[in-house]
Amino acid sequence: MQTWDAIASRRNVRSYADRPIGAENLDQILEAGRRAPSSRNTQPWDFVVVTGRTQLQALAKVWVGAGHVATSAATIALITSDIPEHAKRAQFDLGQATMSIMLAAADLGIGSCHSGVGDPDTAGRLLQLPDDRTCSFLISLGYPADRPLAPIKNPDRRPFDELVHRGTW
Amino acid sequence: MQTWDAIASRRNVRSYADRPIGAENLDQILEAGRRAPSSRNTQPWDFVVVTGRTQLQALAKVWVGAGHVATSAATIALITSDIPEHAKRAQFDLGQATMSIMLAAADLGIGSCHSGVGDPDTAGRLLQLPDDRTCSFLISLGYPADRPLAPIKNPDRRPFDELVHRGTW
Repeated sequence: MQTWDAIASRRNVRSYADRPIGAENLDQILEAGRRAPSSRNTQPWDFVVVTGRTQLQALAKVWVGAGHVATSAATIALITSDIPEHAKRAQFDLGQATMSIMLAAADLGIGSCHSGVGDPDTAGRLLQLPDDRTCSFLISLGYPADRPLAPIKNPDRRPFDELVHRGTW
Repeated sequence: MQTWDAIASRRNVRSYADRPIGAENLDQILEAGRRAPSSRNTQPWDFVVVTGRTQLQALAKVWVGAGHVATSAATIALITSDIPEHAKRAQFDLGQATMSIMLAAADLGIGSCHSGVGDPDTAGRLLQLPDDRTCSFLISLGYPADRPLAPIKNPDRRPFDELVHRGTW
């Protein structure tokens, strides 16, 4: 897919078709995350990719907004260090990795949605994380249950001319 | 450009050719940022796009790592609300918008590099920001001075198999 079509087609998908993601496609999506830039190239993340239905259904309960994880074909858990200073700094970089993952998915016609984690203890137990690691975000992935991804003409966003200032505010 | 090529070609560019970015291309890059997702669609950002050389050279001094702004064809300043709770939450979303902007640029053969802001007061003055807004990041843009963007085979990143865990850690 052309890059612009992937950017224009990406939307939050919260209900997925019962169709797996091919191993090669899933690895390409993970590779997009691996390539994301980060402050001083610290790469403050690990990715745990979950495809088992029982585990996905359990993970879907770690936050009130994570229900979409249950029906996903795969979910990538973004894992960070527990050191508070690292965790705070990592937020921007995690955002970059997330966008890279979601656009690589959109390129393959695969929908995505990210979620915060309200109960990191349960998430850590389900993913068998070491004591010094935390699950910060979940990115669910799968083919949309409703309609295929297609470029969105008028996204629900503030108007371009309100948002963009030229030279000065 | 195909999406995967844009993802694989994006790299930090810190020295730019003396060549402007066409207005249509610049608007497409800004539109990619506008379309980025954010927590509850709050869109916690404004973009000030700077193309004047004198202003770019002054902006390049707001942080020790912002030197690349001086030779850029354009720089997008990401502006956020000053309310501390908003500012903290916005970090992840700003990362998403930044990645979207950088990939849309790469798609057009345009390099990019982002920078933090060490002296927000000076940045705010240069951009004539209202009192309740802060310049959080700068994204410089331009055609690379060294070599065109091309897919990178072996990026300087942790090995895939070290980073990616299957099912559990």
